[in-house]
Amino acid sequence: MRLVIGAKNKQNSIIEKVVSLSKRKGFVFQSSEIYGGLNGCWDYGPLGVELLKNLKEEWWKSMTYRHDVEGLDAAILMHPKVWEASGHLENFTDPMIDCKQCKARFRLDTLGDAISEKKKKKILRAFEEKISGDAVKKSLVDEIYSIHEELDERFEAILENKELSAELLTEVNCPNCGTKGEFTEPRSFNLMFKTFVGPVESDENTVYLRPETAQGIFVNFLNVQNASRQKLPFGIAQIGKAFRNEINTKNFLFRTREFEQMEMQYFVKPGDDKKYYDVWKERRMAWYESLGMSRENLRFHDHPADKLAHYAKEATDIEFKFPFGWGEIEGIHNRTDFDLSRHEEYSGKSQKYYDAETKEKFIPFIIETSAGASRGFMAFLVNAYHEEEVNGETRVVLRFHPKLAPIKAAIFPLVNKDGMPEIAREIEADLRPYLRVFYDDKGAVGRRYRRQDEAGTPYCITIDTQTLEDGTVTLRERDSMEQIRIDKKELLSYLLEKLR
Amino acid sequence: MRLVIGAKNKQNSIIEKVVSLSKRKGFVFQSSEIYGGLNGCWDYGPLGVELLKNLKEEWWKSMTYRHDVEGLDAAILMHPKVWEASGHLENFTDPMIDCKQCKARFRLDTLGDAISEKKKKKILRAFEEKISGDAVKKSLVDEIYSIHEELDERFEAILENKELSAELLTEVNCPNCGTKGEFTEPRSFNLMFKTFVGPVESDENTVYLRPETAQGIFVNFLNVQNASRQKLPFGIAQIGKAFRNEINTKNFLFRTREFEQMEMQYFVKPGDDKKYYDVWKERRMAWYESLGMSRENLRFHDHPADKLAHYAKEATDIEFKFPFGWGEIEGIHNRTDFDLSRHEEYSGKSQKYYDAETKEKFIPFIIETSAGASRGFMAFLVNAYHEEEVNGETRVVLRFHPKLAPIKAAIFPLVNKDGMPEIAREIEADLRPYLRVFYDDKGAVGRRYRRQDEAGTPYCITIDTQTLEDGTVTLRERDSMEQIRIDKKELLSYLLEKLR
Repeated sequence: MRLVIGAKNKQNSIIEKVVSLSKRKGFVFQSSEIYGGLNGCWDYGPLGVELLKNLKEEWWKSMTYRHDVEGLDAAILMHPKVWEASGHLENFTDPMIDCKQCKARFRLDTLGDAISEKKKKKILRAFEEKISGDAVKKSLVDEIYSIHEELDERFEAILENKELSAELLTEVNCPNCGTKGEFTEPRSFNLMFKTFVGPVESDENTVYLRPETAQGIFVNFLNVQNASRQKLPFGIAQIGKAFRNEINTKNFLFRTREFEQMEMQYFVKPGDDKKYYDVWKERRMAWYESLGMSRENLRFHDHPADKLAHYAKEATDIEFKFPFGWGEIEGIHNRTDFDLSRHEEYSGKSQKYYDAETKEKFIPFIIETSAGASRGFMAFLVNAYHEEEVNGETRVVLRFHPKLAPIKAAIFPLVNKDGMPEIAREIEADLRPYLRVFYDDKGAVGRRYRRQDEAGTPYCITIDTQTLEDGTVTLRERDSMEQIRIDKKELLSYLLEKLR
Repeated sequence: MRLVIGAKNKQNSIIEKVVSLSKRKGFVFQSSEIYGGLNGCWDYGPLGVELLKNLKEEWWKSMTYRHDVEGLDAAILMHPKVWEASGHLENFTDPMIDCKQCKARFRLDTLGDAISEKKKKKILRAFEEKISGDAVKKSLVDEIYSIHEELDERFEAILENKELSAELLTEVNCPNCGTKGEFTEPRSFNLMFKTFVGPVESDENTVYLRPETAQGIFVNFLNVQNASRQKLPFGIAQIGKAFRNEINTKNFLFRTREFEQMEMQYFVKPGDDKKYYDVWKERRMAWYESLGMSRENLRFHDHPADKLAHYAKEATDIEFKFPFGWGEIEGIHNRTDFDLSRHEEYSGKSQKYYDAETKEKFIPFIIETSAGASRGFMAFLVNAYHEEEVNGETRVVLRFHPKLAPIKAAIFPLVNKDGMPEIAREIEADLRPYLRVFYDDKGAVGRRYRRQDEAGTPYCITIDTQTLEDGTVTLRERDSMEQIRIDKKELLSYLLEKLR
């Protein structure tokens, strides 16, 4: 019954349907919508905030209920030295160029996206002509052509090449004003949002919105270890917002400027890193499956050795099959002793762990599991979205795992009289302290079911004439649509058991 | 047994003790501590993050488990027009002056804090001399003197007066370099942190970190109402971070630059506002009491009519008796139709509610309950802190309400042999899916109790020789220190009942 999301022609329509359902049902709204929105920012509505909370809570429990993982909640604003030590000030950049004529700014590496294939061919011919007399540049181009067969890839690779990009740019028209070849030299643009602490807007008062939550864990390693008296191996888990001044936001919640992360950094003895990297890889994949993601929509994407980040010895992504293709929802990295060594160097404070058994002091290695809460939210939403034919009508149903479902049970009095509302309200009051429930007495029961299907509510309870006689109610399960009768007194324990 | 926190000489020592305990036990760390800290920012450690989570969860349930309150989680970055409409761009400012000599910047209204009483007297005498020939200024000073008797208050009132402050400033030495009377004209300094979206740092790309979560609710009013199909009166609840570029941060978590709010905006028909203002006042006070705050440490502080904010018709603070004095932990405001009217005006989008019964369209009034999560955290921490004499030794105990306690139960095998650790681990595994528990087998049981007292853990379970014989364990309650024996099979239901 699941729509095949790989199929090209259905790609956009599914994302569009999910975005539209999200707004209508109150999962996700465009941020500041009445003012035309703020690009790359989204607001979670009444159902969305519950789905997001449930997702974060399941992650939090899976981490901090372990005896070897402690929790943390560090500030978004951190000392600017943190970003020197982490390498973000230097390396967390995109190359940008400005049109000298109209002053519009573009990301160099994606400039080609706005140019047609035909135009690209023409530009490349002129470029090849231009450099044909220069043996060094010619051989650089030959090398690029030998690796890349596709036109787009060749174009991009030349733009990214320092020796070649200037010549190519002289042939390119500004995507904004059309002026040809009038661009500034490429400059590095840092993706961290900056602001100023205190009333003076000076360099020394510049701070950054954290682009990742990980550094808050690293700089607190010894504080947490001392307070919790943990021994290696142990982890520190944190959920929180991070910000990246992305030039191109896209794909709904997939690439946004403000987003939420769920990161756990696991500190191990050097030499144990390979073992725990593998352990956490498996644990994290199993976690997604335990919450109802089907394995066929998940895969590992191991980073090849020559593409590893500067801090990583080994790295893999857990990818989900989105309608627009496979996309990363979590990264697992062997960060070695890079982070703590750098913070030791930049802070001048020892970050060494003292091993009471071996009497040795050393900097631990770190295995990182870095999940996107916002991306995970979107993946679980897409994963849950189903359309199916029921009695000749299309039923839209969100098949959330009951633990993730925003509303656990809906309560319907069949009619608004004969004492049914009173019993329904009693049941509501009984369940409410334990479960998020929803009361609905509007319209035909069939329509009420459909509304709850679209909200992903796993159970609907209907109070009818038989309830008045024997105290039983109808309990309808969302996916199978099967109905059973159950004593109203047993509802709570039945539902709690299903939600465990 | 509770220390009287009003007593002047004990004020600082209690805050110092709480700050010190917070770091040692892992409640709160200074942010970026290894780099010397970032002023006005704090990190929550393993115990702190649980206390904060529990506090937020209790608030969230108390709000969104109601049938008339919906949840929301809006982005921190909002469209800049929001802050024009709200009045923050214009009014959310402090007056600042710069020393022309050394360029240091000061908040005008607190400049007097750095000046001794003797010096202030001298400055005021010179100032009075200077303006004595000006009848208008003289009468302004007389008026200020007639209201304020205290020297400090007179000094501050003159500084805040536009006609008089320049003359006073000519007599004041720069607190930084000592130069006399060389200050710039006072300028308004906006307390919102600003940053730039996209690569160009221009006015049109300027956005702000939200200084309050409320506006995220206002601009989503109709989105939420449409999605949830709520009718007036109903509320929207939100928990989230907010940022204020405070010049003077102080009192631990009380005034910080980054903090968390728990806000609920209740939308009502005009005319119902007075009624619901009173209802929510009582509900919110009762909430603090329900979580163990004693009424004597809480009070309402009603704002007098002439001190109301520009948007408010009626306002009160719930104040907690901190060691440094009474301080606001929550504000309850009748905001009238100010906010939605302004957003309608600035966005050009109707913010009117359609009343299906009366067929009328109108802008609802708003009753706001705005609680500080970070301030609440500190208040509950201070409220819980107790020192008492037990057998000639001082016992430090955090008497958290069990719902707020970071760890619900600790499990101790009396000795690390004879099968006790195995049973203890079994109990741990049984409880863990439901409760946050802590396993400790280090040191004498008396010391283990003390460590849990300092963490605020309400129950300790000890497995001893009798456990091996009859399956019962010792259950020790934190506040009374009373011990009972209970069958290990009954532990879970016993604890769950206590934590309800």
